[in-house]
Amino acid sequence: MKNDKTQKPANPIWGGRFDLQTSDNMETLNASIDFDARLYTQDILGSKAHAKMLGACGIISEAEASMICQGLDKIQQEIAENCFNFQKKFEDIHMNIEVRLSELIGDTAGCLHTARSRNDQVATDFRLWVREAIDRLNVGIRNLQAVLIEQADEHSSSIMPGFTHLQIAQPITLGHHLLAYIEMFGRDRSRLVDARSRLNECPLGAAALAGTSFPIDRPMVAKTLGFDKPMTNSLDAVSDRDFAIEYLALASILIMHLSRLAEEIVIWSTEQFDYIQLSDRFTSGSSIMPQKKNPDAAELIRGKAGRVFGALHALLVSMKGLPLAYGKDMQEDKEPVFDATDTLEISLSVMADMLKGAVFNKRQMVNDAGKGFSIATDFADWLVKELNMPFRYAHETIGKIVKLAEKKSCNLGDLSLVELQSIHPKITVEIFSRLNIENSVNTRTSYGGTAPSEVVAQIDEARKRYLKD
Amino acid sequence: MKNDKTQKPANPIWGGRFDLQTSDNMETLNASIDFDARLYTQDILGSKAHAKMLGACGIISEAEASMICQGLDKIQQEIAENCFNFQKKFEDIHMNIEVRLSELIGDTAGCLHTARSRNDQVATDFRLWVREAIDRLNVGIRNLQAVLIEQADEHSSSIMPGFTHLQIAQPITLGHHLLAYIEMFGRDRSRLVDARSRLNECPLGAAALAGTSFPIDRPMVAKTLGFDKPMTNSLDAVSDRDFAIEYLALASILIMHLSRLAEEIVIWSTEQFDYIQLSDRFTSGSSIMPQKKNPDAAELIRGKAGRVFGALHALLVSMKGLPLAYGKDMQEDKEPVFDATDTLEISLSVMADMLKGAVFNKRQMVNDAGKGFSIATDFADWLVKELNMPFRYAHETIGKIVKLAEKKSCNLGDLSLVELQSIHPKITVEIFSRLNIENSVNTRTSYGGTAPSEVVAQIDEARKRYLKD
Amino acid sequence: MKNDKTQKPANPIWGGRFDLQTSDNMETLNASIDFDARLYTQDILGSKAHAKMLGACGIISEAEASMICQGLDKIQQEIAENCFNFQKKFEDIHMNIEVRLSELIGDTAGCLHTARSRNDQVATDFRLWVREAIDRLNVGIRNLQAVLIEQADEHSSSIMPGFTHLQIAQPITLGHHLLAYIEMFGRDRSRLVDARSRLNECPLGAAALAGTSFPIDRPMVAKTLGFDKPMTNSLDAVSDRDFAIEYLALASILIMHLSRLAEEIVIWSTEQFDYIQLSDRFTSGSSIMPQKKNPDAAELIRGKAGRVFGALHALLVSMKGLPLAYGKDMQEDKEPVFDATDTLEISLSVMADMLKGAVFNKRQMVNDAGKGFSIATDFADWLVKELNMPFRYAHETIGKIVKLAEKKSCNLGDLSLVELQSIHPKITVEIFSRLNIENSVNTRTSYGGTAPSEVVAQIDEARKRYLKD
Amino acid sequence: MKNDKTQKPANPIWGGRFDLQTSDNMETLNASIDFDARLYTQDILGSKAHAKMLGACGIISEAEASMICQGLDKIQQEIAENCFNFQKKFEDIHMNIEVRLSELIGDTAGCLHTARSRNDQVATDFRLWVREAIDRLNVGIRNLQAVLIEQADEHSSSIMPGFTHLQIAQPITLGHHLLAYIEMFGRDRSRLVDARSRLNECPLGAAALAGTSFPIDRPMVAKTLGFDKPMTNSLDAVSDRDFAIEYLALASILIMHLSRLAEEIVIWSTEQFDYIQLSDRFTSGSSIMPQKKNPDAAELIRGKAGRVFGALHALLVSMKGLPLAYGKDMQEDKEPVFDATDTLEISLSVMADMLKGAVFNKRQMVNDAGKGFSIATDFADWLVKELNMPFRYAHETIGKIVKLAEKKSCNLGDLSLVELQSIHPKITVEIFSRLNIENSVNTRTSYGGTAPSEVVAQIDEARKRYLKD
Repeated sequence: MKNDKTQKPANPIWGGRFDLQTSDNMETLNASIDFDARLYTQDILGSKAHAKMLGACGIISEAEASMICQGLDKIQQEIAENCFNFQKKFEDIHMNIEVRLSELIGDTAGCLHTARSRNDQVATDFRLWVREAIDRLNVGIRNLQAVLIEQADEHSSSIMPGFTHLQIAQPITLGHHLLAYIEMFGRDRSRLVDARSRLNECPLGAAALAGTSFPIDRPMVAKTLGFDKPMTNSLDAVSDRDFAIEYLALASILIMHLSRLAEEIVIWSTEQFDYIQLSDRFTSGSSIMPQKKNPDAAELIRGKAGRVFGALHALLVSMKGLPLAYGKDMQEDKEPVFDATDTLEISLSVMADMLKGAVFNKRQMVNDAGKGFSIATDFADWLVKELNMPFRYAHETIGKIVKLAEKKSCNLGDLSLVELQSIHPKITVEIFSRLNIENSVNTRTSYGGTAPSEVVAQIDEARKRYLKD
Repeated sequence: MKNDKTQKPANPIWGGRFDLQTSDNMETLNASIDFDARLYTQDILGSKAHAKMLGACGIISEAEASMICQGLDKIQQEIAENCFNFQKKFEDIHMNIEVRLSELIGDTAGCLHTARSRNDQVATDFRLWVREAIDRLNVGIRNLQAVLIEQADEHSSSIMPGFTHLQIAQPITLGHHLLAYIEMFGRDRSRLVDARSRLNECPLGAAALAGTSFPIDRPMVAKTLGFDKPMTNSLDAVSDRDFAIEYLALASILIMHLSRLAEEIVIWSTEQFDYIQLSDRFTSGSSIMPQKKNPDAAELIRGKAGRVFGALHALLVSMKGLPLAYGKDMQEDKEPVFDATDTLEISLSVMADMLKGAVFNKRQMVNDAGKGFSIATDFADWLVKELNMPFRYAHETIGKIVKLAEKKSCNLGDLSLVELQSIHPKITVEIFSRLNIENSVNTRTSYGGTAPSEVVAQIDEARKRYLKD
Repeated sequence: MKNDKTQKPANPIWGGRFDLQTSDNMETLNASIDFDARLYTQDILGSKAHAKMLGACGIISEAEASMICQGLDKIQQEIAENCFNFQKKFEDIHMNIEVRLSELIGDTAGCLHTARSRNDQVATDFRLWVREAIDRLNVGIRNLQAVLIEQADEHSSSIMPGFTHLQIAQPITLGHHLLAYIEMFGRDRSRLVDARSRLNECPLGAAALAGTSFPIDRPMVAKTLGFDKPMTNSLDAVSDRDFAIEYLALASILIMHLSRLAEEIVIWSTEQFDYIQLSDRFTSGSSIMPQKKNPDAAELIRGKAGRVFGALHALLVSMKGLPLAYGKDMQEDKEPVFDATDTLEISLSVMADMLKGAVFNKRQMVNDAGKGFSIATDFADWLVKELNMPFRYAHETIGKIVKLAEKKSCNLGDLSLVELQSIHPKITVEIFSRLNIENSVNTRTSYGGTAPSEVVAQIDEARKRYLKD
Repeated sequence: MKNDKTQKPANPIWGGRFDLQTSDNMETLNASIDFDARLYTQDILGSKAHAKMLGACGIISEAEASMICQGLDKIQQEIAENCFNFQKKFEDIHMNIEVRLSELIGDTAGCLHTARSRNDQVATDFRLWVREAIDRLNVGIRNLQAVLIEQADEHSSSIMPGFTHLQIAQPITLGHHLLAYIEMFGRDRSRLVDARSRLNECPLGAAALAGTSFPIDRPMVAKTLGFDKPMTNSLDAVSDRDFAIEYLALASILIMHLSRLAEEIVIWSTEQFDYIQLSDRFTSGSSIMPQKKNPDAAELIRGKAGRVFGALHALLVSMKGLPLAYGKDMQEDKEPVFDATDTLEISLSVMADMLKGAVFNKRQMVNDAGKGFSIATDFADWLVKELNMPFRYAHETIGKIVKLAEKKSCNLGDLSLVELQSIHPKITVEIFSRLNIENSVNTRTSYGGTAPSEVVAQIDEARKRYLKD
């Protein structure tokens, strides 16, 4: 009965001054245990570090600290072994654990929360979790880079059309194309490193918001938990979620990169392009069309850009205009971070495995590389170099040659010398031997360019930068 | 063993042409059963309507249709009773049900998928689900409006300060203030009605994308499922997710409204404002500060604006730039809709209950209503009416009087006639009897205005528009 | 000198009680005249309607009303002829016009602001502007639909591959494909109609927030301005921006549709697909590559999805958590709406013109339509119909046939009867004459299907629904 | 006439192969000169560096290089002096300058574009612009921090209520509260530094996408332009916009911080809180209510969070799913960055000036600091320290005391010893002398805590970290 419920004893942790029990729908809205149970390891780590410090500082006895730590170890085990009874009425992971601790070790459990609050506790737990997520993503990206480097190495001189506007632009090598992604993912890792360093300060000891009058040792706790230092300002310690937003921002850039690669895989997998053959293991069929083999994995990764961008925006919106210090709006911080992390881990893993098993259709690629007048720029450059023509004039000249070839439905190399000279009289026969897609690629040796020699150098460099330990 | 896994028999629904088994991480990425199991009722309804139509049109026999429907009823029961074994390897709700159906009724199950695809099937299921969600939200908003109307009625003449820029602007009635929210929520319901009407067309029978050569009866299926008509174009039928985006857009406006109301509750609950007293049942305490009673529910609702906005943006992003017809990116449509719906249902419910039990501090409100020179506009209007002054000049005149009162740290009514006349000589003693907050409120009888008489009329109107069945 | 500036006389409209002049950077931040000057026609219309009503109700004299209206007409002319001096120090369009009015007609100008505030004035102006924008977008979409219908008509029986997952799925007609977009844009127009109807209520007369004690006639003003009725609640009238958000939401769905069409144009313009030839007039060249002809227009339209989604997000965020009634945050409402409108008008116009002049490469399309085993579903359906096989078993059977064809690198039609019968012995020679892409398309006559007969019917229907009047 | 227009000579830069002129609406859609003219300084810098390098490498003559640089200097002057004729038909800043250069120096101008493309040119220009924007924002934030530090210093021992959930939590010092913002802004600057370092690589020399066969010296160009190095991969160089997105992400976090501070200013400016008095120079009046003095600046800054979040979202969306290398969608990169930068510069400037001139109402703050049982935690801590009670039990005990005080409508200090002992018998008289808000504040000396001694140390530290050069 509803009425009876309101008479139930109030919350064991904070309920001292309350007469009425939380309403059912409020409990549903308010409880975070369904998702913050994921923080249990971090919560227990943080509590143990806090308890040890309390003991070391004489705020509680060493024996009490020790008893608390043993109780917490037991709880860690219970949860890991799936025999912990999470209860919504205890709201969150912190209270679920504290209540269980008091069952296990009695009144001493009540000493643990000395000189701390859930405000600094959850901030600490969450920083620890995000720090680990950063480390996992770093490994996930590295694995993907390793696959890309391997494929780039295999295809350092495989010629394909380079595209701008999805139109054939200039011949390039597949290795060179893949190296572009290696660079993108390299920046992602660099952002992870910066974010990790910035978040690595410890909120614990900020208490509710003002610090505490107990003689605590914040540097000790920070050190125990692997933080570089305690956070400088106790209000900031409990009201800051920059670390989560910065993480979601870099996650958004990362999934944006993955969405670009995924788009290319989708396009390259078409019958019309036919540049890449994906393994059965990363495609799906159709319930109605017996012949279908769809690049579902690539599409899903592309589509998941939405949810990660959405997660970033969700948290920015929740934090907009919040007065200091802690507000309950901030409980909305965890789910977007958890979801984005899961999304990125699986996406990185599938992308790496899918690319590892993918077969590139070199014949089709090299065949396309010569289409679309792709060496027109080389023609223009030849005019500049051999005839000492200003580039802009060379460009215009070749534009006219392209127009002629298009009218004749032939390629540039199929025009006769007479025809070429009708556009510009000084063009010589030498142009035929010099201008082809192999030469086009091989001569682009500028730093970062597509020539195989340069690609091999980039691969070596990438191995050093991204795969050394 | 990984190696063994790749030798497993392929997917029973679409695996005919596949040699290798889906990889583990691809299965994890690809499967939607974890969330689309929520569509089971809609899926079974749709399948039954389809099967009956196939039977009625002679595409399968009536006996087959009947057997299929009985099997589906059994599955409905199994799922409802929590004894259905959902399997990730069968990807989604559609295949989980079809596989189970074939266990239950044998080969006849294989007839069900005649003349349809999962593409039109999932579009149908999801439209049915969103249609029901719309109906539930409509009820949820109505309940909240009912509470607001009740409170507005009780406070139709309770005076409070009206704010602009959170500065005291003019005296208003609390009933009038609450009626503003009733209007906002009225528009939300109006948007629900429009969205419902627009989505209420049936995709089933579009098959994969091109329609079918089986002599199906799409209007019959549409009618059975309560749709107004079949969708006009079969490509559009499987590639459209407008209904979900439109739903998330109106959900975003709705949570925005709730966030405004929540912000006011947070501010009004402060020690400084002290306009509203929330029940213990909708507040929480602090783990460290024994005295705290926090308006958590209001903060959570305010904070949840982030996740609903994020859901809207997630789906817009996923749909951006998708070529026709179906792409797997579109599988990202369901989770944001589910999450936004759950969020809004609980938020509406808690908001209604919280407001129902809230006590407004009328004394504090009326006391504040006279502060901040809140009747300065009435002074200016008096000058216009009595002294026939152009409003702009009256405004400037009262501005000077305000400056004088501020200098003397008194209220407008505390200035002497002599002082008033020092600013403008024609001001008469009458001004003292006429200008007070009660008169200010009572005379604002323009349509939609704050006068209690007008508020009562608005309440009557609101009851008719929003609470009649 | 800064010091001097602070001594300047304060604002002529609201400065009565102020001692110090607005600081320079505050003026820059605060002023909206740079963008809200766009509202001048609406502002003058609104002011004239208000003045006439004040005159009709005897709140000002008819002569005063008339003089005000003449002054406003003069200002309208001055602005239209580009000889109006907009000044940032007068903040916004309302004050710029009122100040100019007082220059033109003297003190009587000061009567205009009786019984109104800038709060209800700007809400009225902006609703009028959005209403017109809705009407313009409606026309813009209609024009695009007309082009699509024309092209669909020309290509009602042009066969192309239908895609799912960008893989060839089943043969369809180009007309059918284009009709899908006609439906999407039809829903966009339907949303415009609903939004227009919902916004068409008049805020004027709400004054600051509380209504007024002057005996105004709000229905008269509403009628003059073409609104259906005055808004019901005066607080809501000044604090509501739903109409702008709803408009941005439908604009976002519209640009999402355009982005899908644009993506297809980009893909179809590739050398590899070669389905569509765009006119020079809608492509651009490269500064370095003389041969390039890029589908820039399509890419820009696709890319502009970002800015429209961003505009929607911006306004939702600005409105989140705002207490009633008006807050200055709401000044952020106009720029996103203006920008989204401009973006959509030019995008619709370019898309229509680009498609009108586009040439579809029917030969290439029909050639591709037979690739990728596109009639495998027809094979399966044949087994169901002729051999009375359950569809699921037919699907599996054809899957095996596809696997065989793939192994032999041939198409389904190239397999011998013996080979087909090795998979299923009952397959007969009839299958060869029946199964081809023309038959596949022609037999898909289900409602909304791709058969030319059905497409022609859809075109007729589309003309009636979208192009009549 | 339209027809004539299509016969006009085509584009002078890339039009060689084109027959028809760009259509009018396409020109409007396509041209970026309206906004990218802002890049003129960067464009000229980049072109000069490129020309010098071409000369130094012997690709053009030193005389040509010199002539080009002189022409560019002249153009720089023309634009700076507002006598440059920007033309939409030349699309963008690059072509407008190149066309003008050819007017000034003739055919030699045509040599400038050797070995480069607009793709690498615009990427270089934009990186230079963002780098400068980062430096300006860094200064803007520093200025705001300086003001905050000054105010924190003045109020290092001014007592105010510390809030959580906007409920009074514990007494803190105003200096401590302001220091929290100094920390937030410190992180913003740290993110600026990281982003600057990551973007500081030079795309120039990537040419269209593949590098070039001209013997260019990319490190030389990079060095001239102050970049750390050339970008590693030429495809990545032209297709990367990470630097702009990362910039918008940190801008979003920065405006989020400002929105929190703005929200507090709005709330503290209310009649009810009355903690802060803003100067006339940063407030505005009302057109109807003569008494109003609104915190418009704070509201606008809060509201502008929307546009900056929207800008971030816009660019993420535009970049989603773009295949390599350059696509025209990427032209959407500049406006959000320009707008966010302008928004942040003015917001930082106004916030700094507004806070500098703000007067804090210390009396009101200290008065509120004792309300709401704000020292209940100190009571609980006393029980722990003096009576050796576990904290959880102490919390519950004080909860009961709070309930008693609330029932008696008195403060904790107003309860008699007898009453306190009725809750817990061991409480002694000492509690009265020890527990007051001054002691509460003064004893919170934990690192980062609110005690004035600790605040002073934090201020010293902040000066060193944030204000030293």
